[in-house]
Amino acid sequence: MRIAVYFTISEVDPAALAESTVVVVDVVRATTTIVEALANGARAIYPTASTEEAVKLAGSLGRDDTLLCGERRAAKVEGFDLGNSPGEFTRATVEGKRLVMSTTNGTRAFIAGEEGERLLACAFTNLGAVAAAVEGAESLAVLCAGREDLFALEDALCAGYLIERIAGSRGDEPELNDAALAARTLAGTLHPDRTFLAQVGAGRTLMEIGLGDNLEICTEMDRHTIVPEMRNKTITLPTR
Amino acid sequence: MRIAVYFTISEVDPAALAESTVVVVDVVRATTTIVEALANGARAIYPTASTEEAVKLAGSLGRDDTLLCGERRAAKVEGFDLGNSPGEFTRATVEGKRLVMSTTNGTRAFIAGEEGERLLACAFTNLGAVAAAVEGAESLAVLCAGREDLFALEDALCAGYLIERIAGSRGDEPELNDAALAARTLAGTLHPDRTFLAQVGAGRTLMEIGLGDNLEICTEMDRHTIVPEMRNKTITLPTR
Repeated sequence: MRIAVYFTISEVDPAALAESTVVVVDVVRATTTIVEALANGARAIYPTASTEEAVKLAGSLGRDDTLLCGERRAAKVEGFDLGNSPGEFTRATVEGKRLVMSTTNGTRAFIAGEEGERLLACAFTNLGAVAAAVEGAESLAVLCAGREDLFALEDALCAGYLIERIAGSRGDEPELNDAALAARTLAGTLHPDRTFLAQVGAGRTLMEIGLGDNLEICTEMDRHTIVPEMRNKTITLPTR
Repeated sequence: MRIAVYFTISEVDPAALAESTVVVVDVVRATTTIVEALANGARAIYPTASTEEAVKLAGSLGRDDTLLCGERRAAKVEGFDLGNSPGEFTRATVEGKRLVMSTTNGTRAFIAGEEGERLLACAFTNLGAVAAAVEGAESLAVLCAGREDLFALEDALCAGYLIERIAGSRGDEPELNDAALAARTLAGTLHPDRTFLAQVGAGRTLMEIGLGDNLEICTEMDRHTIVPEMRNKTITLPTR
Protein backbone atom coordinates (compact mmCIF):
# COMPACT_ATOMS: atom_id res chain seq x y z
CA MET A 1 0.00 0.00 0.00
CA ARG A 2 1.13 3.51 -0.81
CA ILE A 3 0.13 6.15 1.74
CA ALA A 4 0.43 9.86 0.98
CA VAL A 5 -0.39 12.39 3.69
CA TYR A 6 -1.05 16.04 2.86
CA PHE A 7 -0.70 18.42 5.80
CA THR A 8 -2.58 21.28 4.14
CA ILE A 9 -5.22 21.34 1.43
CA SER A 10 -3.03 23.57 -0.76
CA GLU A 11 -0.65 20.61 -1.14
CA VAL A 12 -3.32 18.40 -2.66
CA ASP A 13 -3.60 17.94 -6.41
CA PRO A 14 -7.26 16.79 -6.63
CA ALA A 15 -6.78 15.29 -10.11
CA ALA A 16 -4.05 12.98 -8.78
CA LEU A 17 -6.48 11.35 -6.31
CA ALA A 18 -8.61 9.50 -8.91
CA GLU A 19 -7.20 6.08 -8.06
CA SER A 20 -6.88 6.64 -4.34
CA THR A 21 -9.03 6.00 -1.35
CA VAL A 22 -9.18 9.42 0.27
CA VAL A 23 -9.50 10.03 4.00
CA VAL A 24 -10.28 13.51 5.34
CA VAL A 25 -9.05 14.35 8.85
CA ASP A 26 -10.24 17.41 10.76
CA VAL A 27 -10.00 16.41 14.40
CA VAL A 28 -10.90 19.88 15.75
CA ARG A 29 -13.65 19.57 14.82
CA ALA A 30 -15.41 18.81 11.53
CA THR A 31 -14.73 15.09 11.20
CA THR A 32 -15.18 14.46 14.93
CA THR A 33 -18.55 16.19 14.68
CA ILE A 34 -19.55 14.28 11.52
CA VAL A 35 -18.77 10.97 13.22
CA GLU A 36 -20.74 12.02 16.30
CA ALA A 37 -23.76 13.18 14.29
CA LEU A 38 -24.00 10.04 12.15
CA ALA A 39 -23.40 7.78 15.15
CA ASN A 40 -26.34 9.52 16.81
CA GLY A 41 -28.69 8.84 13.94
CA ALA A 42 -28.40 11.83 11.61
CA ARG A 43 -29.54 10.71 8.13
CA ALA A 44 -27.07 12.66 6.03
CA ILE A 45 -24.61 15.55 6.19
CA TYR A 46 -24.15 18.08 3.41
CA PRO A 47 -20.86 19.99 3.68
CA THR A 48 -20.98 23.44 2.11
CA ALA A 49 -18.25 25.96 1.38
CA SER A 50 -20.05 29.08 2.61
CA THR A 51 -22.73 30.01 5.12
CA GLU A 52 -24.76 31.50 2.24
CA GLU A 53 -24.65 28.21 0.35
CA ALA A 54 -25.63 26.40 3.57
CA VAL A 55 -28.71 28.58 4.08
CA LYS A 56 -29.74 28.15 0.44
CA LEU A 57 -29.31 24.38 0.50
CA ALA A 58 -31.18 24.00 3.80
CA GLY A 59 -34.03 25.97 2.25
CA SER A 60 -34.20 23.70 -0.78
CA LEU A 61 -34.02 20.53 1.33
CA GLY A 62 -36.95 21.71 3.45
CA ARG A 63 -36.39 23.17 6.89
CA ASP A 64 -38.64 20.66 8.71
CA ASP A 65 -36.08 17.93 9.14
CA THR A 66 -32.95 19.89 8.28
CA LEU A 67 -30.55 21.49 10.75
CA LEU A 68 -28.14 24.26 9.83
CA CYS A 69 -24.77 23.73 11.49
CA GLY A 70 -21.43 25.40 11.26
CA GLU A 71 -18.70 27.66 12.53
CA ARG A 72 -16.55 30.52 11.41
CA ARG A 73 -13.36 31.00 13.43
CA ALA A 74 -14.61 28.24 15.75
CA ALA A 75 -17.77 30.08 16.85
CA LYS A 76 -21.33 29.12 15.85
CA VAL A 77 -22.69 31.01 12.85
CA GLU A 78 -25.42 33.42 13.95
CA GLY A 79 -28.90 32.13 13.19
CA PHE A 80 -27.73 28.55 12.70
CA ASP A 81 -29.29 25.69 14.69
CA LEU A 82 -25.99 24.20 15.80
CA GLY A 83 -22.31 25.12 15.86
CA ASN A 84 -19.53 22.62 15.29
CA SER A 85 -19.16 21.19 18.80
CA PRO A 86 -19.43 17.39 18.71
CA GLY A 87 -21.25 17.44 22.05
CA GLU A 88 -24.17 19.35 20.54
CA PHE A 89 -24.91 16.54 18.10
CA THR A 90 -26.79 14.33 20.54
CA ARG A 91 -29.32 11.69 19.52
CA ALA A 92 -32.15 13.86 20.83
CA THR A 93 -31.06 16.69 18.55
CA VAL A 94 -29.96 15.00 15.32
CA GLU A 95 -31.71 11.64 14.97
CA GLY A 96 -33.47 11.39 11.61
CA LYS A 97 -32.29 14.87 10.60
CA ARG A 98 -30.38 16.08 7.60
CA LEU A 99 -27.52 18.40 8.52
CA VAL A 100 -26.24 21.15 6.30
CA MET A 101 -22.77 21.90 7.62
CA SER A 102 -20.54 24.83 6.85
CA THR A 103 -17.08 24.69 8.39
CA THR A 104 -13.96 26.64 7.58
CA ASN A 105 -11.43 23.91 6.89
CA GLY A 106 -13.30 20.61 6.87
CA THR A 107 -15.50 21.45 3.92
CA ARG A 108 -12.53 22.54 1.81
CA ALA A 109 -10.89 19.19 2.48
CA PHE A 110 -13.98 17.26 1.37
CA ILE A 111 -14.17 19.31 -1.82
CA ALA A 112 -10.47 18.67 -2.52
CA GLY A 113 -11.02 14.93 -2.07
CA GLU A 114 -14.07 14.59 -4.32
CA GLU A 115 -12.12 12.97 -7.16
CA GLY A 116 -11.07 10.07 -4.95
CA GLU A 117 -12.27 6.52 -5.55
CA ARG A 118 -13.84 6.65 -2.09
CA LEU A 119 -13.95 9.58 0.33
CA LEU A 120 -14.10 8.82 4.04
CA ALA A 121 -14.20 10.94 7.20
CA CYS A 122 -11.70 10.11 9.94
CA ALA A 123 -11.21 11.34 13.49
CA PHE A 124 -9.63 9.79 16.56
CA THR A 125 -13.18 8.77 17.51
CA ASN A 126 -13.50 6.34 14.57
CA LEU A 127 -9.85 5.57 13.88
CA GLY A 128 -10.04 1.77 14.08
CA ALA A 129 -13.11 1.59 11.86
CA VAL A 130 -11.42 3.71 9.18
CA ALA A 131 -8.22 1.65 9.38
CA ALA A 132 -10.27 -1.50 8.77
CA ALA A 133 -12.24 0.11 5.94
CA VAL A 134 -9.16 1.13 3.93
CA GLU A 135 -7.20 -2.07 4.47
CA GLY A 136 -7.56 -3.33 0.90
CA ALA A 137 -6.66 -0.03 -0.80
CA GLU A 138 -3.59 0.11 -3.07
CA SER A 139 -3.27 3.83 -2.70
CA LEU A 140 -4.41 5.88 0.27
CA ALA A 141 -4.41 9.69 0.46
CA VAL A 142 -4.91 11.31 3.85
CA LEU A 143 -6.00 14.95 3.59
CA CYS A 144 -5.43 16.91 6.79
CA ALA A 145 -7.79 19.87 6.87
CA GLY A 146 -5.35 22.05 8.80
CA ARG A 147 -6.22 25.51 10.05
CA GLU A 148 -6.84 28.11 7.39
CA ASP A 149 -4.12 26.66 5.19
CA LEU A 150 -1.68 26.16 8.03
CA PHE A 151 -0.35 22.91 9.43
CA ALA A 152 -2.46 21.57 12.33
CA LEU A 153 -0.65 19.16 14.62
CA GLU A 154 -3.75 17.26 15.79
CA ASP A 155 -4.64 16.33 12.20
CA ALA A 156 -1.07 15.23 11.46
CA LEU A 157 -1.10 13.13 14.63
CA CYS A 158 -4.41 11.50 13.71
CA ALA A 159 -2.98 10.67 10.26
CA GLY A 160 0.01 9.11 12.01
CA TYR A 161 -2.13 6.98 14.30
CA LEU A 162 -4.15 5.84 11.28
CA ILE A 163 -0.94 4.75 9.53
CA GLU A 164 0.17 2.89 12.66
CA ARG A 165 -3.15 1.04 12.81
CA ILE A 166 -2.98 0.13 9.11
CA ALA A 167 0.65 -0.96 9.29
CA GLY A 168 -0.06 -2.99 12.40
CA SER A 169 -2.71 -5.06 10.64
CA ARG A 170 -0.72 -5.78 7.47
CA GLY A 171 2.29 -7.97 6.81
CA ASP A 172 4.07 -5.57 4.46
CA GLU A 173 5.30 -2.09 5.24
CA PRO A 174 3.33 0.68 3.54
CA GLU A 175 5.24 3.03 1.21
CA LEU A 176 5.10 6.51 2.74
CA ASN A 177 5.61 10.01 1.39
CA ASP A 178 7.54 12.50 3.54
CA ALA A 179 4.45 13.78 5.35
CA ALA A 180 3.26 10.24 6.08
CA LEU A 181 6.71 9.39 7.45
CA ALA A 182 6.59 12.49 9.65
CA ALA A 183 3.04 11.75 10.82
CA ARG A 184 3.97 8.20 11.76
CA THR A 185 7.02 9.44 13.64
CA LEU A 186 4.86 11.93 15.56
CA ALA A 187 2.45 9.10 16.46
CA GLY A 188 5.36 7.23 18.02
CA THR A 189 5.95 10.09 20.46
CA LEU A 190 2.78 12.11 21.03
CA HIS A 191 -0.40 10.91 22.66
CA PRO A 192 -3.71 12.56 21.78
CA ASP A 193 -5.26 13.58 25.06
CA ARG A 194 -6.70 16.77 26.43
CA THR A 195 -3.30 18.00 27.58
CA PHE A 196 -1.93 17.52 24.08
CA LEU A 197 -4.86 19.30 22.43
CA ALA A 198 -4.55 22.18 24.87
CA GLN A 199 -1.07 22.86 23.45
CA VAL A 200 -2.03 23.05 19.79
CA GLY A 201 -3.43 26.12 18.06
CA ALA A 202 -6.93 24.75 17.45
CA GLY A 203 -7.26 23.61 21.05
CA ARG A 204 -6.06 26.94 22.44
CA THR A 205 -8.62 28.77 20.29
CA LEU A 206 -11.46 26.59 21.59
CA MET A 207 -10.42 27.15 25.18
CA GLU A 208 -10.22 30.89 24.65
CA ILE A 209 -13.84 31.03 23.47
CA GLY A 210 -15.06 28.74 26.24
CA LEU A 211 -15.44 25.59 24.13
CA GLY A 212 -12.64 23.63 25.81
CA ASP A 213 -15.06 20.82 26.67
CA ASN A 214 -14.88 19.79 23.02
CA LEU A 215 -11.36 18.57 23.57
CA GLU A 216 -12.55 15.56 25.55
CA ILE A 217 -14.61 13.99 22.76
CA CYS A 218 -12.09 14.96 20.07
CA THR A 219 -9.42 12.74 21.64
CA GLU A 220 -11.63 9.79 22.60
CA MET A 221 -10.06 7.03 20.55
CA ASP A 222 -12.47 4.54 18.95
CA ARG A 223 -15.54 6.00 20.62
CA HIS A 224 -17.49 4.81 17.56
CA THR A 225 -17.10 2.12 14.92
CA ILE A 226 -18.67 3.88 11.96
CA VAL A 227 -17.10 5.15 8.74
CA PRO A 228 -18.84 8.18 7.23
CA GLU A 229 -18.48 8.25 3.45
CA MET A 230 -19.15 11.07 1.01
CA ARG A 231 -20.87 10.41 -2.32
CA ASN A 232 -22.41 13.09 -4.52
CA LYS A 233 -21.57 15.77 -1.97
CA THR A 234 -23.48 13.92 0.76
CA ILE A 235 -21.92 12.19 3.77
CA THR A 236 -23.76 9.13 5.09
CA LEU A 237 -23.12 5.68 6.52
CA PRO A 238 -23.55 3.70 3.29
CA THR A 239 -23.07 0.27 4.84
CA ARG A 240 -26.08 0.43 7.14
CA MET B 1 10.88 33.98 21.95
CA ARG B 2 8.07 33.05 19.58
CA ILE B 3 9.02 30.52 16.90
CA ALA B 4 6.77 29.84 13.91
CA VAL B 5 7.71 27.14 11.44
CA TYR B 6 6.13 26.97 7.98
CA PHE B 7 6.44 23.59 6.27
CA THR B 8 5.61 24.92 2.80
CA ILE B 9 6.00 28.33 1.23
CA SER B 10 2.27 28.49 0.46
CA GLU B 11 1.65 28.70 4.21
CA VAL B 12 3.72 31.86 4.57
CA ASP B 13 2.09 35.28 4.69
CA PRO B 14 5.09 37.44 3.68
CA ALA B 15 3.52 40.62 5.08
CA ALA B 16 3.32 39.02 8.54
CA LEU B 17 7.11 38.55 8.69
CA ALA B 18 8.04 42.24 9.00
CA GLU B 19 8.99 41.99 12.67
CA SER B 20 10.53 38.54 12.50
CA THR B 21 13.99 37.20 11.98
CA VAL B 22 13.47 34.81 9.07
CA VAL B 23 15.46 31.64 8.50
CA VAL B 24 15.20 29.76 5.21
CA VAL B 25 15.86 26.01 5.28
CA ASP B 26 16.39 23.97 2.11
CA VAL B 27 18.64 21.12 3.21
CA VAL B 28 18.51 19.30 -0.15
CA ARG B 29 20.10 21.38 -1.42
CA ALA B 30 19.90 25.15 -1.84
CA THR B 31 20.85 26.31 1.66
CA THR B 32 23.48 23.58 2.06
CA THR B 33 25.00 24.74 -1.23
CA ILE B 34 24.84 28.43 -0.27
CA VAL B 35 26.66 27.70 3.00
CA GLU B 36 29.28 25.66 1.16
CA ALA B 37 29.85 28.32 -1.52
CA LEU B 38 30.24 31.21 0.91
CA ALA B 39 32.42 29.14 3.25
CA ASN B 40 34.67 28.50 0.26
CA GLY B 41 35.10 32.17 -0.56
CA ALA B 42 32.31 33.05 -2.99
CA ARG B 43 31.73 36.83 -2.78
CA ALA B 44 27.97 36.86 -3.15
CA ILE B 45 25.02 34.74 -4.24
CA TYR B 46 22.07 36.08 -6.22
CA PRO B 47 19.02 33.77 -6.03
CA THR B 48 16.74 34.07 -9.06
CA ALA B 49 13.28 32.69 -9.74
CA SER B 50 13.87 31.44 -13.28
CA THR B 51 16.75 30.24 -15.44
CA GLU B 52 16.01 33.07 -17.88
CA GLU B 53 16.32 35.65 -15.11
CA ALA B 54 19.57 33.97 -14.01
CA VAL B 55 21.10 34.21 -17.50
CA LYS B 56 20.06 37.85 -17.82
CA LEU B 57 21.43 38.81 -14.40
CA ALA B 58 24.71 36.98 -14.98
CA GLY B 59 25.07 38.91 -18.24
CA SER B 60 24.55 42.25 -16.52
CA LEU B 61 26.95 41.41 -13.67
CA GLY B 62 29.68 40.56 -16.16
CA ARG B 63 30.52 36.97 -16.98
CA ASP B 64 34.23 37.22 -16.03
CA ASP B 65 33.81 36.59 -12.33
CA THR B 66 30.23 35.30 -12.31
CA LEU B 67 29.16 31.68 -12.31
CA LEU B 68 25.70 30.49 -13.36
CA CYS B 69 24.43 27.78 -11.04
CA GLY B 70 21.18 25.96 -10.67
CA GLU B 71 18.91 22.99 -11.04
CA ARG B 72 15.52 22.06 -12.33
CA ARG B 73 14.13 18.79 -10.96
CA ALA B 74 17.48 18.27 -9.20
CA ALA B 75 19.55 18.16 -12.44
CA LYS B 76 21.98 20.89 -13.57
CA VAL B 77 20.49 23.40 -16.00
CA GLU B 78 21.98 22.93 -19.46
CA GLY B 79 24.61 25.51 -20.31
CA PHE B 80 25.09 26.55 -16.66
CA ASP B 81 28.54 26.48 -15.04
CA LEU B 82 27.43 24.54 -11.96
CA GLY B 83 24.41 22.57 -10.74
CA ASN B 84 23.20 22.62 -7.15
CA SER B 85 25.48 19.97 -5.64
CA PRO B 86 27.29 21.35 -2.59
CA GLY B 87 30.37 19.33 -3.52
CA GLU B 88 30.81 21.30 -6.75
CA PHE B 89 31.27 24.55 -4.85
CA THR B 90 34.92 24.05 -3.93
CA ARG B 91 37.33 26.85 -3.10
CA ALA B 92 39.11 26.32 -6.41
CA THR B 93 35.86 26.87 -8.28
CA VAL B 94 34.05 29.62 -6.37
CA GLU B 95 36.60 31.76 -4.49
CA GLY B 96 36.15 35.43 -5.34
CA LYS B 97 33.22 34.65 -7.67
CA ARG B 98 29.69 35.95 -7.75
CA LEU B 99 27.14 33.17 -8.13
CA VAL B 100 23.79 33.60 -9.83
CA MET B 101 21.70 30.72 -8.56
CA SER B 102 18.39 29.44 -9.84
CA THR B 103 16.80 26.66 -7.79
CA THR B 104 13.25 25.35 -7.77
CA ASN B 105 12.28 25.68 -4.12
CA GLY B 106 15.07 27.56 -2.37
CA THR B 107 14.67 30.75 -4.36
CA ARG B 108 10.92 30.87 -3.73
CA ALA B 109 11.58 30.62 -0.01
CA PHE B 110 14.04 33.53 -0.07
CA ILE B 111 11.55 35.66 -2.01
CA ALA B 112 8.80 34.81 0.50
CA GLY B 113 11.09 35.85 3.36
CA GLU B 114 12.21 39.19 1.93
CA GLU B 115 9.99 41.23 4.25
CA GLY B 116 11.70 39.82 7.33
CA GLU B 117 13.78 41.97 9.65
CA ARG B 118 16.73 39.73 8.81
CA LEU B 119 16.84 36.83 6.35
CA LEU B 120 19.30 34.01 7.05
CA ALA B 121 20.14 30.75 5.31
CA CYS B 122 20.20 27.60 7.44
CA ALA B 123 21.23 24.01 6.78
CA PHE B 124 22.45 21.24 9.04
CA THR B 125 25.95 22.33 8.02
CA ASN B 126 25.67 25.71 9.80
CA LEU B 127 23.02 24.92 12.39
CA GLY B 128 24.93 26.02 15.49
CA ALA B 129 26.00 29.30 13.91
CA VAL B 130 22.41 30.15 12.95
CA ALA B 131 21.12 29.21 16.41
CA ALA B 132 23.65 31.62 17.96
CA ALA B 133 22.82 34.36 15.44
CA VAL B 134 19.08 34.37 16.18
CA GLU B 135 19.38 34.07 19.95
CA GLY B 136 18.24 37.61 20.70
CA ALA B 137 15.23 37.61 18.36
CA GLU B 138 11.75 38.12 19.82
CA SER B 139 10.07 36.47 16.86
CA LEU B 140 11.61 33.84 14.63
CA ALA B 141 10.03 32.46 11.43
CA VAL B 142 11.52 29.33 9.90
CA LEU B 143 10.58 28.87 6.25
CA CYS B 144 11.02 25.33 5.01
CA ALA B 145 11.45 25.36 1.24
CA GLY B 146 9.80 21.96 0.79
CA ARG B 147 9.57 20.22 -2.56
CA GLU B 148 7.43 21.92 -5.15
CA ASP B 149 4.93 23.00 -2.54
CA LEU B 150 4.93 19.71 -0.68
CA PHE B 151 6.17 18.99 2.81
CA ALA B 152 9.84 17.88 2.87
CA LEU B 153 10.84 15.93 5.97
CA GLU B 154 14.53 16.91 5.92
CA ASP B 155 13.64 20.61 6.10
CA ALA B 156 11.17 20.01 8.93
CA LEU B 157 13.82 18.03 10.79
CA CYS B 158 16.41 20.78 10.34
CA ALA B 159 13.90 23.30 11.69
CA GLY B 160 13.38 21.00 14.68
CA TYR B 161 17.10 20.70 15.38
CA LEU B 162 17.41 24.48 15.15
CA ILE B 163 14.64 24.89 17.75
CA GLU B 164 16.35 22.36 20.01
CA ARG B 165 19.63 24.29 19.79
CA ILE B 166 17.91 27.59 20.51
CA ALA B 167 15.89 26.19 23.42
CA GLY B 168 18.98 24.53 24.83
CA SER B 169 20.83 27.83 25.08
CA ARG B 170 17.99 29.84 26.65
CA GLY B 171 16.46 29.77 30.10
CA ASP B 172 12.86 30.21 28.97
CA GLU B 173 10.84 27.91 26.74
CA PRO B 174 10.11 29.31 23.30
CA GLU B 175 6.45 29.69 22.28
CA LEU B 176 5.87 27.37 19.32
CA ASN B 177 3.23 27.17 16.61
CA ASP B 178 1.92 23.72 15.62
CA ALA B 179 4.54 23.17 12.94
CA ALA B 180 7.34 24.20 15.30
CA LEU B 181 5.99 21.78 17.93
CA ALA B 182 5.91 19.01 15.31
CA ALA B 183 9.41 19.84 14.07
CA ARG B 184 10.81 19.77 17.58
CA THR B 185 9.10 16.44 18.24
CA LEU B 186 10.60 14.99 15.05
CA ALA B 187 14.04 16.20 16.14
CA GLY B 188 13.65 14.20 19.33
CA THR B 189 13.29 10.98 17.33
CA LEU B 190 14.97 11.26 13.93
CA HIS B 191 18.66 11.67 13.27
CA PRO B 192 19.81 13.36 10.06
CA ASP B 193 22.26 10.98 8.47
CA ARG B 194 22.65 9.45 5.05
CA THR B 195 20.28 6.59 5.91
CA PHE B 196 17.61 9.07 6.94
CA LEU B 197 18.05 11.19 3.81
CA ALA B 198 17.87 8.09 1.61
CA GLN B 199 14.29 7.54 2.90
CA VAL B 200 12.92 10.98 2.10
CA GLY B 201 11.63 12.08 -1.30
CA ALA B 202 14.42 14.56 -2.06
CA GLY B 203 17.12 12.03 -1.18
CA ARG B 204 15.55 9.28 -3.28
CA THR B 205 15.41 11.65 -6.26
CA LEU B 206 19.11 12.50 -5.91
CA MET B 207 20.07 8.83 -5.73
CA GLU B 208 17.98 8.02 -8.79
CA ILE B 209 19.87 10.57 -10.90
CA GLY B 210 23.27 9.51 -9.55
CA LEU B 211 23.78 12.44 -7.17
CA GLY B 212 23.55 10.41 -3.95
CA ASP B 213 26.98 11.65 -2.87
CA ASN B 214 25.34 14.97 -2.02
CA LEU B 215 23.63 13.34 0.94
CA GLU B 216 26.89 13.15 2.90
CA ILE B 217 27.55 16.90 3.01
CA CYS B 218 23.85 17.73 3.47
CA THR B 219 23.77 15.93 6.83
CA GLU B 220 27.16 17.05 8.14
CA MET B 221 26.14 18.94 11.25
CA ASP B 222 28.08 22.14 12.01
CA ARG B 223 30.55 21.64 9.16
CA HIS B 224 30.82 25.45 9.01
CA THR B 225 30.28 28.33 11.41
CA ILE B 226 29.02 30.95 8.99
CA VAL B 227 25.59 32.57 8.66
CA PRO B 228 24.69 33.64 5.12
CA GLU B 229 22.36 36.63 5.13
CA MET B 230 20.28 38.08 2.32
CA ARG B 231 19.99 41.85 1.84
CA ASN B 232 18.72 43.53 -1.31
CA LYS B 233 18.32 40.18 -3.04
CA THR B 234 21.98 39.31 -2.44
CA ILE B 235 23.26 36.64 -0.04
CA THR B 236 26.65 37.32 1.58
CA LEU B 237 28.47 36.92 4.88
CA PRO B 238 27.91 40.45 6.21
CA THR B 239 29.92 40.01 9.38
CA ARG B 240 33.21 39.38 7.64
